[in-house]
Amino acid sequence: MTVSPRSAPLGVWLIGARGAISTCLAYGVFGLRRGLLGATGVVTDGEPFCELPLASEDDLVFGGHEVSTRDLSASVGELVQAGVLPGDLAQACAEEGDLFSAATRPGILDAAEVGGQDLDPRSAELGALLPREQIARVIADWDSFEAENKLDGMVVVDLSSTEAQQEARPAWQSLAAFEEELDSGRSQPASVLYAYAALSSGRPLVNFTPNRSASIPALMELAEKKGVAHAGRDGKTGETLLKTALAPMFTHRALKVHAWQGYNMLGNRDGAVLSDSAHRATKIENKDRALRELLGDGDELHTGVGIDYVPSLGDWKTAMDLVHFEGFLGARMTLQMTWTGSDSALAAPLVLDLIRLVDFAQRAGEGGSLRATACFFKAPVSGGSHDFHQQHAKLVHWAEKHLAEG
Amino acid sequence: MTVSPRSAPLGVWLIGARGAISTCLAYGVFGLRRGLLGATGVVTDGEPFCELPLASEDDLVFGGHEVSTRDLSASVGELVQAGVLPGDLAQACAEEGDLFSAATRPGILDAAEVGGQDLDPRSAELGALLPREQIARVIADWDSFEAENKLDGMVVVDLSSTEAQQEARPAWQSLAAFEEELDSGRSQPASVLYAYAALSSGRPLVNFTPNRSASIPALMELAEKKGVAHAGRDGKTGETLLKTALAPMFTHRALKVHAWQGYNMLGNRDGAVLSDSAHRATKIENKDRALRELLGDGDELHTGVGIDYVPSLGDWKTAMDLVHFEGFLGARMTLQMTWTGSDSALAAPLVLDLIRLVDFAQRAGEGGSLRATACFFKAPVSGGSHDFHQQHAKLVHWAEKHLAEG
Amino acid sequence: MTVSPRSAPLGVWLIGARGAISTCLAYGVFGLRRGLLGATGVVTDGEPFCELPLASEDDLVFGGHEVSTRDLSASVGELVQAGVLPGDLAQACAEEGDLFSAATRPGILDAAEVGGQDLDPRSAELGALLPREQIARVIADWDSFEAENKLDGMVVVDLSSTEAQQEARPAWQSLAAFEEELDSGRSQPASVLYAYAALSSGRPLVNFTPNRSASIPALMELAEKKGVAHAGRDGKTGETLLKTALAPMFTHRALKVHAWQGYNMLGNRDGAVLSDSAHRATKIENKDRALRELLGDGDELHTGVGIDYVPSLGDWKTAMDLVHFEGFLGARMTLQMTWTGSDSALAAPLVLDLIRLVDFAQRAGEGGSLRATACFFKAPVSGGSHDFHQQHAKLVHWAEKHLAEG
Amino acid sequence: MTVSPRSAPLGVWLIGARGAISTCLAYGVFGLRRGLLGATGVVTDGEPFCELPLASEDDLVFGGHEVSTRDLSASVGELVQAGVLPGDLAQACAEEGDLFSAATRPGILDAAEVGGQDLDPRSAELGALLPREQIARVIADWDSFEAENKLDGMVVVDLSSTEAQQEARPAWQSLAAFEEELDSGRSQPASVLYAYAALSSGRPLVNFTPNRSASIPALMELAEKKGVAHAGRDGKTGETLLKTALAPMFTHRALKVHAWQGYNMLGNRDGAVLSDSAHRATKIENKDRALRELLGDGDELHTGVGIDYVPSLGDWKTAMDLVHFEGFLGARMTLQMTWTGSDSALAAPLVLDLIRLVDFAQRAGEGGSLRATACFFKAPVSGGSHDFHQQHAKLVHWAEKHLAEG
Repeated sequence: MTVSPRSAPLGVWLIGARGAISTCLAYGVFGLRRGLLGATGVVTDGEPFCELPLASEDDLVFGGHEVSTRDLSASVGELVQAGVLPGDLAQACAEEGDLFSAATRPGILDAAEVGGQDLDPRSAELGALLPREQIARVIADWDSFEAENKLDGMVVVDLSSTEAQQEARPAWQSLAAFEEELDSGRSQPASVLYAYAALSSGRPLVNFTPNRSASIPALMELAEKKGVAHAGRDGKTGETLLKTALAPMFTHRALKVHAWQGYNMLGNRDGAVLSDSAHRATKIENKDRALRELLGDGDELHTGVGIDYVPSLGDWKTAMDLVHFEGFLGARMTLQMTWTGSDSALAAPLVLDLIRLVDFAQRAGEGGSLRATACFFKAPVSGGSHDFHQQHAKLVHWAEKHLAEG
Repeated sequence: MTVSPRSAPLGVWLIGARGAISTCLAYGVFGLRRGLLGATGVVTDGEPFCELPLASEDDLVFGGHEVSTRDLSASVGELVQAGVLPGDLAQACAEEGDLFSAATRPGILDAAEVGGQDLDPRSAELGALLPREQIARVIADWDSFEAENKLDGMVVVDLSSTEAQQEARPAWQSLAAFEEELDSGRSQPASVLYAYAALSSGRPLVNFTPNRSASIPALMELAEKKGVAHAGRDGKTGETLLKTALAPMFTHRALKVHAWQGYNMLGNRDGAVLSDSAHRATKIENKDRALRELLGDGDELHTGVGIDYVPSLGDWKTAMDLVHFEGFLGARMTLQMTWTGSDSALAAPLVLDLIRLVDFAQRAGEGGSLRATACFFKAPVSGGSHDFHQQHAKLVHWAEKHLAEG
Repeated sequence: MTVSPRSAPLGVWLIGARGAISTCLAYGVFGLRRGLLGATGVVTDGEPFCELPLASEDDLVFGGHEVSTRDLSASVGELVQAGVLPGDLAQACAEEGDLFSAATRPGILDAAEVGGQDLDPRSAELGALLPREQIARVIADWDSFEAENKLDGMVVVDLSSTEAQQEARPAWQSLAAFEEELDSGRSQPASVLYAYAALSSGRPLVNFTPNRSASIPALMELAEKKGVAHAGRDGKTGETLLKTALAPMFTHRALKVHAWQGYNMLGNRDGAVLSDSAHRATKIENKDRALRELLGDGDELHTGVGIDYVPSLGDWKTAMDLVHFEGFLGARMTLQMTWTGSDSALAAPLVLDLIRLVDFAQRAGEGGSLRATACFFKAPVSGGSHDFHQQHAKLVHWAEKHLAEG
Repeated sequence: MTVSPRSAPLGVWLIGARGAISTCLAYGVFGLRRGLLGATGVVTDGEPFCELPLASEDDLVFGGHEVSTRDLSASVGELVQAGVLPGDLAQACAEEGDLFSAATRPGILDAAEVGGQDLDPRSAELGALLPREQIARVIADWDSFEAENKLDGMVVVDLSSTEAQQEARPAWQSLAAFEEELDSGRSQPASVLYAYAALSSGRPLVNFTPNRSASIPALMELAEKKGVAHAGRDGKTGETLLKTALAPMFTHRALKVHAWQGYNMLGNRDGAVLSDSAHRATKIENKDRALRELLGDGDELHTGVGIDYVPSLGDWKTAMDLVHFEGFLGARMTLQMTWTGSDSALAAPLVLDLIRLVDFAQRAGEGGSLRATACFFKAPVSGGSHDFHQQHAKLVHWAEKHLAEG
């Protein structure tokens, strides 16, 4: 199926619209558009992806949901202060920032949500509604956004904070059971409500968070049924990227890893949320699972990740890893790594890639979970190996296939 | 071509027979044979390689050349002291060690060779002969070894110290020119003489050192002509392995590496030799080239490797790397790594792999440079990408092709 | 007061007699005695301490209490395996080890004690007795030990596992109230019982653990009243030593530390015990307090220590520290440190120092808490600055004062 | 002698006036004056030093010599770009910057000076004059500066690049011989000429570089004779500070350091100059000597420092250190450290401290080398222990003595 270039703008709806990643993404796109910035970190700007008729930075119009009341300018200020967002870029793009700000609506606040002295009371109200009402409100926001901006479709992107871990529910196992539960009025995690709203209204979805979102079987089924492209779960930006790029090396060399212990220090809102143990559990699970799959799940393998909130680090996450392994003759060796990176600056270009890729897939008629995007996620919803090199090869292969077809 | 399992022992001739890698290799094989040791670090003991009729540890008989007079037991003692070779393994295998020791002959000493208060005067004598005489002596040693041990072939392995860097000579560009130079009596680096001796007498060769050995065009030609399998150059054991496993991650994520600076501290004989700058140049060149190929050879990319001799570290090399890179929004990030490993324990099992692989290739009729072994080398003689994951995939593919044929 | 050299042996009673530190201490002393070992790490073997008539390694006779049933030889085996205790030293001193083993008695098992599949049922019985009975039993063990070995006094050393943290009790505030509580039969932490037993029977005490032991006001009072020398609390062996040696540098340079976050990975029994959060709290408190005192307890200073159990590391603790600080012009800088050390090999010589010092103080008539030993502890019972350099200067000053008097 | 507060401004003459340290110092003082900046990193702003009548930031007037033609604004721009100097501070203080710029004169260019595409031809001319003429020119510049700004004295500060190492000359051993050599017209290193000019004209001097400056016996003698206060040599800002703060810990604990190997990566002009081996030698010598003094100069101790130029790091020096040490039972342990700091932001406040201290000493009648400032230098000209804690205690003691007298 030949895909034509876009003739009308594409909406980008960011859930968690004033968070650090959203801010970096929006201002980054504004900067690209004004030629103030290079596309460093944007995978789809390189070969072979740039040959596909993907949405360009000029095509994108931003809106979003947000549960806190703090201003976008506060988020911008913090990122400039932290040395992540260049000050002159922020100034030059203030007007586009205001437009984005004006297109932000109160989001749904989960009961279990933490970290908020500045929560929006309207979000708490929304959080107290029945699920069917919540979904209707969300879709109404999107319909207005599309109409006002004369969009040719939109992509919904979940960039909200990590939710508290919840047991899987039986009613999540099938679409029928899930819809029955919705009808019954039982409350649902916000990420699941957003995902249902997007997929049921035919809008492609990217879940960059560790939240459930479209990963529950009921919504995987809905996406297939409706033919809506989606990709997720839990962006692979830093330490886990490193782990899944490196762990295969040990396996390929028949070196026996005894322990791979990580320790993350971070000081942004993500760090504050993760200092709550229920929220942390959601996150660590994904980090651990990838490693155990790649190294073999032997009894002798110890893996773990400690996370601590260190306020002064701000957006600059410092992740330390110790790999303790055994070689020939039983010799014990170590690899230590320290990764110091801005989480938001690492995440934002990948989100841009994913927006372009799910939009393209949707236009190319590829509904359901977009397996080719596994390299972007800690816990790809459609499974497959966690080996980053294999995952990347699959993405390249997918693009080449489309190029050959196109 | 179907390859039968071995029916007679395979000779393994180690140049640098009493060095740390040779000692670890020989005692490791003795330990495997006696069931005192697991095969950790031995790639060919895992799938799919173990399905091929490779030589087993029971098939191997060791001999070698050595230019120093120090005893094998001194080398064993140092490695036990350093915690690399387990003391009880060394004791249990003393008898096999004596046999190996008895099969060691004086090697050729290059004029430029350094680091030797304990050099063997017989090696210096050999070093002063005409090249044709040197080659004849070496081949005579091998003929005796084969005859005495009723071997069905042998593999020559270069594990000698790094030679001083030498300008490429015009006469190395073709076999004809090279043989003319041999006839003229012009002296040659020892590694080149050994390689000529091996290939011209039909013996497979592994060059695990950064030395020229069979990598010069004249000898590549000889190997093709004679149909002799060989593999080389410069074993990829530790830091460079890490680099070539990790650098593609940066490229795949469109992250811009500004600097990748390494610093190696080591305290073994290798370290002492490398503290001489002419010898160091040979080594660093290979380390740098791989990285520049993988990251793109841009003007803005800085790469370098510092090497210092720190005696107390012994065989435990400590390699520190700083990767300074740029992400989206121009954000500057770093990855620091510290690798602490026993160089010899990392190298020895790979040498065992290579012995098995070139022997198998030879028996399978695959003469010339064995391209499938690129993953084992810093500077693979037959070129190709330095991406470790791609290299490993090629090795697996090669094995699977042989299994399918077998 | 002039102190004469010892004319009869000194008993050393180790609580936690088959733990890693006790084992290293005892075998280390055996090794020193036999001339198999240098005194590296033993502070009192250097100037000016070696001029004092301290007990020599030949004077010491070992006995101890232990709550687990595992053999001393098991502990020795583990330490040899881990590369901490040299195998030949262990073999050469087996006889002395047997004597020590024979002088070990069941200790008191606290109800809250964890980590024990191999707990001694006799210890559990002892743990269930009334406190006055427990104290009597312990003293009876010591009386027998002294009599059997014709000792001229003994030092009691607490090297047991970290106890679960307990609220301070009002009855611990004075000796009278405490003795009343003992009479009433209310159970006490084992470390407190041992300390009471030692001090009330006139035996000097060293508390190398973070446990309460003699640090409660009631027992500080008892030690003063009885004139018994004691020293404690929580040996400063590795990471905290480093912190208290380094933190003053930041203060002296007017650099503003925003965060000092540590992360400890360890795999020995200590690690297993500390993986329990109640036990961990006791430990972390001391680590944090020293740092806050040295850096100023500002609101902007963040300190913390994560601890995780990584079994394969065994006795080799890996402690990572990140210091995030601000300099002139608001520039943000970092110091990262990774300390890899054998906790037991670091602790054992300090315990030897402390035994010699409290014994000497006792003979010199210096009863009560020995303030000069603050440099050995994370939480010195008599307080004072945590600055390691100031603490060390005080110890030197104390020795010089005694030398001048002697 | 009671010292009165200043009643007229103090001149500060920076040799290397447009280098990174000078720029940070000048703009930092401007920022302090305008209340835009806190005094983080300024030792003399804390107790007890702030009780002394030291020059305040309001008293200082800047001028300087410079051998390159690049603008101060270029230096400011680089430091803002690197995130060392805050952009808004630079803007706010542009006027003061212009005044400083206007008071900058061409400096003396040594024949051996490197790193300069942008060298000032007037400096090369000055470099070619006879030494007596050079000295006269320099003093004339200072006289004008003092007169124009109605200064009550000035302090000369050497902040120039590291000079190529030169053999000590016999004529440097006494003032008489040195002056004879000056008369004879033999050329001298620029740092020596500046020092002679300062001391002979009665102006206090700070040598923050590793250059010879006033450290040669002839000039030490001159300073004594003239009663001029001076302090030097080679500012102890980062890695060496860390070493001299930490090395005593190993000694105090009787731990045996086998190796202390450092590796510095830096990307500023200092790095470019140090990539020249003759210049590097000057630097490394001081780094090594301090460590060997503190750890004992045993044969078994290995120390060394590798330095490499990594352009992208700019002013952010990354210094890695590996300490390999032995504890009790022969256990081998390591401490690794990575220091990431802005060299200029670390140096600038110490230079401010030194200006205040030598000016105060001069006013207090303390001529000659100011021993109390040893804590600021890698190679204090008046010797003494390198132990940072002892050095700092001496500085405090000196201040307290003056306060008691005052």
